[in-house]
Parts: sequence; structure tokens; C-alpha cells
Amino acid sequence: MEKFFFPNAVVVVGVSESKDNLGQNIISNLVNFGYEGKIHAVGPKGGRVMGHKIYQSVLDVPDAADLAVILTPARFIPEIITQCGKKGIKHAVIESAGFGEMGPEGKSVEKDLFAASKRSGIRFIGPNCVGLINTLNGLYVPFIALPSEFKKGHVSVIAQSGGVGLSLAERLNNPGLGLSKFVSIGNKLNMDEADLLAYLIKDPDTAVIYFYLEDFKRGREFADIALRSNKPVILHKSNTNPLTHTIAKSHSAALAAEDRIVDVACTYAGIVRVQSTEEAIFAIKGISMPLLKGKNLAILSRSGGHAVVATDMCAKYNFNLPELHPSILDEAKRHFRAGVIKIGNPLDLGDIFDLRVYPQIAEIILQQPDIHGIVYIHVSQMVIENEDTIQVMKKLAELSFKYDKPIVIVAEVPLSFHQMLKEELTHPFFMDPVEAFRALALQYHYAVFRQKKRPAIKKAAFPLKNSVKEWLEGIQQKGRQPLLHEALDLLDRLGIPTAPWRMVTTFTGARKAANEMGYPVVIKAVSPSLLHKSDQGGIAINIGNVETLEKLWEKIQSRIKGVVGIVLQKMIFASREIIVGAKRDPFFGPVVLMGLGGIMVEVMQDANMRLAPVDEDEASDMIDQLRGVRILGPFRGMKAADRRAIVRCLVEVSRLMYDLPEIQELDVNPLILSDDGNDGMAVDVRVICSNITQ
Amino acid sequence: MEKFFFPNAVVVVGVSESKDNLGQNIISNLVNFGYEGKIHAVGPKGGRVMGHKIYQSVLDVPDAADLAVILTPARFIPEIITQCGKKGIKHAVIESAGFGEMGPEGKSVEKDLFAASKRSGIRFIGPNCVGLINTLNGLYVPFIALPSEFKKGHVSVIAQSGGVGLSLAERLNNPGLGLSKFVSIGNKLNMDEADLLAYLIKDPDTAVIYFYLEDFKRGREFADIALRSNKPVILHKSNTNPLTHTIAKSHSAALAAEDRIVDVACTYAGIVRVQSTEEAIFAIKGISMPLLKGKNLAILSRSGGHAVVATDMCAKYNFNLPELHPSILDEAKRHFRAGVIKIGNPLDLGDIFDLRVYPQIAEIILQQPDIHGIVYIHVSQMVIENEDTIQVMKKLAELSFKYDKPIVIVAEVPLSFHQMLKEELTHPFFMDPVEAFRALALQYHYAVFRQKKRPAIKKAAFPLKNSVKEWLEGIQQKGRQPLLHEALDLLDRLGIPTAPWRMVTTFTGARKAANEMGYPVVIKAVSPSLLHKSDQGGIAINIGNVETLEKLWEKIQSRIKGVVGIVLQKMIFASREIIVGAKRDPFFGPVVLMGLGGIMVEVMQDANMRLAPVDEDEASDMIDQLRGVRILGPFRGMKAADRRAIVRCLVEVSRLMYDLPEIQELDVNPLILSDDGNDGMAVDVRVICSNITQ
Repeated sequence: MEKFFFPNAVVVVGVSESKDNLGQNIISNLVNFGYEGKIHAVGPKGGRVMGHKIYQSVLDVPDAADLAVILTPARFIPEIITQCGKKGIKHAVIESAGFGEMGPEGKSVEKDLFAASKRSGIRFIGPNCVGLINTLNGLYVPFIALPSEFKKGHVSVIAQSGGVGLSLAERLNNPGLGLSKFVSIGNKLNMDEADLLAYLIKDPDTAVIYFYLEDFKRGREFADIALRSNKPVILHKSNTNPLTHTIAKSHSAALAAEDRIVDVACTYAGIVRVQSTEEAIFAIKGISMPLLKGKNLAILSRSGGHAVVATDMCAKYNFNLPELHPSILDEAKRHFRAGVIKIGNPLDLGDIFDLRVYPQIAEIILQQPDIHGIVYIHVSQMVIENEDTIQVMKKLAELSFKYDKPIVIVAEVPLSFHQMLKEELTHPFFMDPVEAFRALALQYHYAVFRQKKRPAIKKAAFPLKNSVKEWLEGIQQKGRQPLLHEALDLLDRLGIPTAPWRMVTTFTGARKAANEMGYPVVIKAVSPSLLHKSDQGGIAINIGNVETLEKLWEKIQSRIKGVVGIVLQKMIFASREIIVGAKRDPFFGPVVLMGLGGIMVEVMQDANMRLAPVDEDEASDMIDQLRGVRILGPFRGMKAADRRAIVRCLVEVSRLMYDLPEIQELDVNPLILSDDGNDGMAVDVRVICSNITQ
Repeated sequence: MEKFFFPNAVVVVGVSESKDNLGQNIISNLVNFGYEGKIHAVGPKGGRVMGHKIYQSVLDVPDAADLAVILTPARFIPEIITQCGKKGIKHAVIESAGFGEMGPEGKSVEKDLFAASKRSGIRFIGPNCVGLINTLNGLYVPFIALPSEFKKGHVSVIAQSGGVGLSLAERLNNPGLGLSKFVSIGNKLNMDEADLLAYLIKDPDTAVIYFYLEDFKRGREFADIALRSNKPVILHKSNTNPLTHTIAKSHSAALAAEDRIVDVACTYAGIVRVQSTEEAIFAIKGISMPLLKGKNLAILSRSGGHAVVATDMCAKYNFNLPELHPSILDEAKRHFRAGVIKIGNPLDLGDIFDLRVYPQIAEIILQQPDIHGIVYIHVSQMVIENEDTIQVMKKLAELSFKYDKPIVIVAEVPLSFHQMLKEELTHPFFMDPVEAFRALALQYHYAVFRQKKRPAIKKAAFPLKNSVKEWLEGIQQKGRQPLLHEALDLLDRLGIPTAPWRMVTTFTGARKAANEMGYPVVIKAVSPSLLHKSDQGGIAINIGNVETLEKLWEKIQSRIKGVVGIVLQKMIFASREIIVGAKRDPFFGPVVLMGLGGIMVEVMQDANMRLAPVDEDEASDMIDQLRGVRILGPFRGMKAADRRAIVRCLVEVSRLMYDLPEIQELDVNPLILSDDGNDGMAVDVRVICSNITQ
């Protein structure tokens, strides 16, 4: 992988003398930005460009090279790749479009490309991409003639759209930021997001990793690699809804992951998800400062109004403003001029005209142990303050690193002075308090993840019970989807509490079972015809005696096709229900969902999701994150619901999904929670296995 | 009011020769920015400043003047105001702090100031403010030495914080924007937000009005004036939560309105509410373009990735992307170079290298009747395109006005070129698609309001029924809050359906009533002791026969203190409930609320609010805006709920609140909706009257 970014020489394929040839731009970028290795141009018509001879074939290039950059019509590329292989070039950046994203013809070229690269042992980036950049050695291979070098820095940018990636890279030209590596990954036919993330985590020149993605090729692997990363990963994932999917497909052959699962994966892996290039910059700025150790802030502001706006933001993002120690306030007061401003936290500096006092005050605030960071809002319209302002801001940045606490600087100054600040400062600053708090909130999100113990990633971490394996073998032998009694049986084998139930095939059996478990009971027809529609008159509830049982038994037998038996269950009365569901996402694998159930509540869609497996703590978090979690506590005369039953159900279902890829979907709906808090019991469940069509 | 902005002369009070005298800044601003009238300086020590003599008293000023600007210690100001009165100055800007916001001492000065201004017939802005600006005549009276004039334009800025206001004014220095008038209103002791809004609506030099407010003095009047405005009003209301309230109080004596009522008032009055200075600029940019007539957009982009991001935004803000006419696509295709990009809407222009074609394509798109606006995303890294880019953008702006449809321009270009665009263009543009869509969404919000018929504002629009007046007189005579049967009686008089009920005082009466209405019944104790807690064992439900009735009758009598009778109600069985509430907000007057009820659903807080009164359409909107509105439709075997009963209840309660200020609060909880869809009936209600303590 190293050779993609540090090749000894680059062969640019697709260069001609023609005025509008884009290959020339690649050569000129390499020349202009001082690429250190050798540059070779290749194009069938030959000639010269920028002092470089254009060889007519890759095979004609006199020297060895690590990297080929290819920008020719798609149909020629498989052959060019073969030639690269012969020449010993093992890495390629394919910038041309015209592959899978263009329909059947492109698909066929794609196939040839795969074959050629495999034969030649070549790894490639693209196709359909703008190219890559390494600011460290001047390796600039985009086919766009860039106006200038990017500012060198610690941020690496991986983008599925070259346009969006370059916009972000351009905005890294800001104090405290800068670009390390840039890769436009295009169609990701060979090198994908997971490959690049794995590389950058080890790259000593990268401290912050930014991704712009429109789809995932290996979502779960990407998340698992990010989870292990000690570097922050910031993700702008677009293409979030059906309207967009059709567009994205035509643009770069992108399929779409369900957006809320992307959110879930980001939470899992500590990835900071952003929704725009602007927000990405906020996140990068935020994360480039010392990380918060807690949620307590001090606000220093020269304008009372800005302090009010900042305090609103504090509340919005759940930060606190603890009282400042009286000695700090006294020190501030000592410098006040008119004495017409009250002091506290926020501390209004509007009455201190000598700017040089501000860092002194900031320093004693940083020394207060329960203050974890400062938001400093500088407001000035006066040119005569500019020099002092720059000094104050530099000093504050130093203090921030000295005390390992963030000082977020807001510069509410005329735009002309903004420009000057950009040139003078070497650390990030913000345009207004809202931006500053967005950055701080994104940073805090990451800081918390860093402090948390991370879940271990182990395949088959939970030894699968033999009884569960046997169950699966039984279903597979039958070659059809599990019926209700089989699904309930699976829950029993997993140790998930179910309401007492019995599968019966004769009325005598039903009567016996009802007598044993006691009335009232529920009966549910079991039939393959009900697999996809469970409620076609196949259920009767609250049956109080044997006469009713007999009547309804017969009714159900006559109404439902292909009844193989009836599940008889104890009737459970309770006001609270939850739903536990699990499915297999094509990009992120098994996910588990829980939500409040019951007809009045389901409509509110109060549910949340995690990547499977979840442990008991995570299951507990899922419960607490319900908007209506209060219902599950002691509530209107009911005792707190049986939380252990919910947790047990979530943990076991999630482990099953993780360990047994043969299960495609599983829904417990509902799990009923008794008013007295003693029981939580699954009363209905549906299981769908993979590779069974019936 | 005119004289505040167009005074013939300005008297600046509080000027001295001292180096750090702030009054000097006022003089220098007036001089530097070319104020056209006469400037007079006043200060007890006399002397000269910038060629102006400093008179020792206002009375010494030789000429007449319309406006005094005062920046002296607060305690001197009442006397200065008196002198202004003698001198015939009828308008003042008081910039000094040290009034009500500083505690009892300041309060006392405030009182003197009120008295003096009243005696002298002087209207004033402030105190505790930065001052005002009129860019048209160079009237700049802030006490901060401003570095340069603000760009002249069509936006007027009224700010409760000078700092925040000036930050916004500074950002108006952008293509297509600019400042007309600026007022820092400080403590709003005399001139408040409603006064200034009323003036600016009539001001010919103002097209867009921006407010930054931390509190309201006359919220409802402000909203009513905005409702009648033909100019867009943009509001940044901060100080939105308890954490902030304490800060804001110390800053400018601000009390806080409940934030969601501010939202409600903005919806009512078509005020565009923003959450930051940045968003205010987006809104101003958006509103300064032709208004959308619908939600159908076309996206033109030179980068596929940016088109994907833009399409996500389209979906987020519920815009549509209709198909473009085939002739348009053919025209675009004609200019394509490599033919490797699919076309549609978004239209990817990445393959058209001749920029001059873009406006041609934009124009035929604007001619398509069902396209209401265009988002044009310009992506370029190449310096050689700069000149063409500027021409394209200018042409697009022209087309936008020619076809009266917005073309929102996004310039994803290097920051250096951004600067150049700012200088060259005379219409707004945006940094990225996310910004553009935020602006467009804010604009659309306003455009819809403009197209809507606005509710008439009439005091006592709905003749109050005599029966309701009589009811109120009865309560007032009793001198205590209404009891349950009286509250139910009020609903009956308003024509709001209630479950059949009877107030009884003897068991014989109860038995008779129960027989008449039929079992099962509910009984509820009526007692002043239950006014503030309704559920202390004073209720028994689902009473099936006379024996149970007798038993529970006695139990309740013995358990509840001071029972004056019992309300006997028909027991209603139904699965769906709603809550209708009303209260009187100190800033916005009567508001009405409705939400889903029932123990499982209330926890979800699915409710919304309006300023009272609401008409039937608005009441219907309130229902539709519930997240769980589906529950009220045909739902799981139930028929659609009795919508007319809900509407009736909302309309009548809201009118009552509007017409009868003697009612402080009213809660119908619940209104029960029968499963068969036939009935909606209030079963419990609480009414609280003003000025009754018991």
C-alpha cells in the first residue's frame, strides 16, 4: 500500500499533445508541486509534454516504476493493466469513468479489468476517480490542473467523490489544519474504504482521518477497523434516502445502506458522523484541540449578547457552566473599568479594556479542577486592537495545550481582520459561538468514546449451544421456514422467557393443556399458509372455559388452510409491551432493534438499534434511550417492568444473529411486561432463515 | 420616529478630552462616515474634540437638535433628559448601562428616568445599548470606533445586544446584501421591539427586517404587527432556556418567554426564526431572491458528489426533483464531451467543459412550468475558468429575476477565488449545497406564508355568549376557583360535548341519576380541597350497580375533606383520548394546546400549540401535526375518531381564552373518543380564573 503514496516513479497513461488533453494536467501537477520521483508520460500518439517524452506504450517506458496513473477510454484499460503487470508496476490509479456505472457495456469492461489485475497481481484505486495526493512528497495526480499546493497538515481525506473531497481539502487551508493524504476512491472496484482506513490508521503522517462515502463496500469491516483505531475517524456519509439512491447509482454505481444503520455503526465504532463539508471542518477543528475530560465549561466573552447565545448552545448540547471560584471573579473585577457588568460564568469581559489581562484570567480558570474547557468569544471592531488580539489568541492556544483542556476561540471581528487572523494564527478559531459549540459537541462525542472501554471484536465469541444447532439442523432438514411453535421453541432453547405454551394437534390435547396451565388461554393456528400473514382469523384470545375453547378450536380449523396444529398459550394480562427485532443488513451484518410496542404506542416509532452482538450494558442503554422509557419504570400504579427479561432477550437474539448467519430475521413481537414487574414474556415470534425459499 | 434616523442635528452628551473617553468614538464615527447634519458635543469638563467645542451643558448648545445621544454615568441621565426637554430635543439614544439590570440602585435611577422623559415628552432608545446607525445619511452613533462604513443595502437590523447586532451587520458585507438601519435597543425601557417593527414596515429604505431579541416586551403586539407586514421578518431569539435566563437577566434585564411559544408565535405571524447569526444570513440571502412558488427544483452540478449531497438535502427539506423535459436533456447531451455521465435531474454538467453553455441550459429549464427553482453547483479548481465563472453567475442571476424563480448559486471554489467572487458579484451565493438548501428551506417557509390567507386580527371577534358571562359572574361572586361541576357546566355552555353528568348531593339523588343515565357510571367527589390535586381517592370508575354505588358513595364521603357534592358521570369505554389545554403566556397572551392522551401515550409528549384564537382550519392543522395522528384515523379496527368534537373543543376553548381574560387556565383532560367514531366527549376539566386566590 505504501507504494501508492510513496512511489519511486509515476507512469501517466493517456497523455497527448492535444490542447484539451486531461493527462497533461496530471503531468503539470506533478511538476508544479515538486514530486520527488521520476515522471513518465504514455500515449499512443507520442510527442512531448512539459519537457517529457510521451512513450507510445507502457512497455516502452525505460525505467521501473511503482505506480501507473491511467486516464484513457475505459475499453483500453484492461490491456494497459496487463502491460503494467509485464513492466512490474504493481499499483495503479484508474481515473477514467465508463465502467459499471454506465450499464452492461461498462460491466463487461469491468470484468476484463478484474481479470487483468488479478493475473498481473496489481492493486488499483478507482476507476471513476479524480486521483490521489500526498502532500509530503508532492505526489499530485488529479486530472484537474490545481491552482496551488494544498497546505500540509495532519488530516487525510478519502472521498468517494473527487469534487466533494477536493472541496474539503481546500477548506483545510485554515489555521491548525492541513492535508496529509488525499484519495478519490471512485467505484472502489479494488481498494475500498476498509483498505484505506486500515492503512491510514498506521500512517505516521496522519492524525485525523476524514471519509466522504456514498455507499459501503465493506461496512462492518470498516466499522470494526475504526473501532480499533486510536485516531479519530470523521465520516460524511451522503446518499441517505431513496430519492438520492437513483442519482448516486448513476454517479458511481452506489447502492445504499439504510441510513439509521449507518448511524448505529458510527455509534458502535466511535466514528464522528457529519452531514456536510462545513460540519466536517468543525469536527476536524474540534478534534484537533485537547480533548474534553468532562462537560463543564467556562465562557469568557467581550459581548453579553454573544454570551447569551453561547449559553443557549451550552444548554442545547448539555454542557454545564459551574460557578467560578470567588478568587477568579475577584481577579476579574480588579480590572473592571465602569463596574456596570455583573460577573459569573459566563464571565463578561466587556468592561476590561486591556486585552492582555484575558490570558491571565483564562489561566486561573484552567487551574480550577472542575472546569474542563473554555469558550473564549472575542468581539472587536477596532483596528487598534488587532495586534493585541493576535497575541491574546496565541497565548490562549499555548495555555490550552499546557493545561490539556480545549480553549475554543471565537473571533467575531470584521472579515478583513479574519483574513489576517488566518495568516497569523497556527490553531483553529471559529466565526461565531454556534460554530464553536458544534465543534465542541462533536469533539465531546469522540472524547467520551475514547474514554469508554471498547467491546472486543471476536468472531463466534459466544459458544453456540448444541440445542440451538440441533434446532437449525431440524429446520434445514424440513426445508421450509420455521413455524410458530418452532420459533417459540428456539426462544426456549435460547433461554428467553416465553409465556407458557404447548403445541397441540388434537382437541383432547388442547383441553388437557388448557387444564394444566389454567384458563384463560389463547390459541394460535400453526400453518405454513400463515408464515407471511399472521392475523387472518387464526388467533383467539382470552378463552375462559372449555366450551369456548372447543367452539373456537373448530372455527380456526375450518378457517385456516393447512393447519398442522395449534399453539395454546396462557393468556397474559399486562399494559406494557416491547418489540425485539433483528435482521441482517447487507453492509453492516446483523443488527438488533428494540422498541415500545402496543397498538397506541407503536405508532410513535419509539425504537432504537445496535450492531449485533450487544452485551448487557448495551442492551440496558437501548432501553434507556427510548423516548418513552418512563413507561417501563414504576409508572401510574404499575411496578417497574422486568428489565432483566428485556435485556436477556436482546442479548440472546443479538448473539444468535451474530453466530448463526443462517438466521435472516427474527422478531419477538410482543414481549409482554407484567404490571407487577415480575415477568417479561415473549408471546409471539417470527423467524426467517436464509437460503430457504418456502 | 423618523427623527431618530433622520435628525437635523445630533447632541452627543458625555464627551471629554480624556484619552479613553468613549463619547469621542461617537463623534469620530459621525465625522468619519459623513453624517450630514450638525454635530454638537457636551461634557461637564468642556474643551474640544475633533474640531468640535465641548459644551458644558445641553442647555449651552447654540442650535436646535432632534436627537441626543447620551453616554454618561446613569445617575446623571434623568437630569440630562430634563435639560433635553427644555432644549426641545424630543428623541434620545441612551447608551449608558447601570439601570434596572444592576439591582435596586439602578431601578431607582430607572424610575427617575421614566418620570423625566414623561414630563419632557421625550422618546428614547436604550438604555444599555450600543446606539443606532442609518447608512443612508451617515448617522453612526455607536460608542465603538468602527473601522469602516457598513455596506449600504436593504436589510435593517434591530438587536437587543449590540455585539450580536454588529456581528450580523458586518456579515451583510456580502454580495446582494447590505445594511439600511441598525438599532441596538438594550433594555427597551421606552422604545421596544413592537415600536421598531411598526416603523420599519413603513420605512421605504428597508426591504428585510432582522431582529435579535433576548426577551419580549410586547410579544403578542410584535407578532400581530409582523402578521400584517409585507416585508419578511427574520428573528434570532436567544435566551431559550433556564440555564441562559440567569445570564441574560444580568446582561440586560431580560425575562424569558417559553421557547416553544416563541416558535408558535413565529408560525402564526410568518416570522422566519433562525438559531444563529450564520443562519440569519442564510435566511436573508434566501429571501433576497425571487420566492419559490412550489417545491419542485432542478439541480445542476459540475460534480456528481455534490449533486448527491444536494439531493440528500432535497429529501431532507421535502423538495422534489421532477423529470426534466427530454428536449432539455437532449440539448445538454449535445454539449457532452466524453459521454460517460448519465443525465437526469440532478443534471451532471461535469462533462460539459464550455461554461458558457450553462446559462443556456438553465434558461430552458426555467421555462419548464413545473420547475420552481434551480440549485446551481459550480465546482472549479482552475484559475483559467475564473472569468467565465463570473460571467456565468451574473447571467444566472439575471435569468433568476427574468423568470421570477430563484437560482441558488453554490460556489465550490478555492477560497482565494471566493474573495474575488465577493467583489465581482451583486447577488448572493453559497459555500456549499447544505448552506444553499438551508437558505432555500427558510425562504420556502416564508413563501408559503406569503401565499396563505392570513387570519384577521380583531379584538373580541366572537361575541361572548350571555350564558358564559353569567357563569363568570357566578364564580366571581363566590370568590373561589370553579369546582368540577362548574367547570363541566362551562363546557356545556360553550357547546363542547361532555359525557352525560349530574351534580348530586344526596345518595338518593345519585341513585336516581344513575338509573336515568344507565350503569356503569363514574363518581367524582367535588370539593375545594381537590382543586389542586384531583386524584386522592375521590374517584371511582366502572360502577355496575346500585349496591357498589352505595358502598363507594360512602367511602368517598368519608375519605375526602369538605365534599360539597358528587359528579356522577356515564362511564365511557374508548381506547383513544386527547388533551386540550389553554393558558395565558405573559408575553404572547392566550395559547391553546392539544395532544394525544392516555397513560401510555402521554409520556411521548405528542402535543402542539397555537396562539388563541384558532379557527376550524387551524384546529384541524393541529390534529394533523401530531406525530401519532394515525391513531385518530381508522386504526386497528376502530373507526376514525370524532374529529369535529376535537375541533369544536379547540375552537371554543381558544375563543374563550381570547375573549375572557378572567380565565387563566383551562384543561380538558381527557376528551375521550369512541372506537366507533361517533362521539368525542370531555370527561374531566379544570378551570382556573385570574385574580382569585382561593
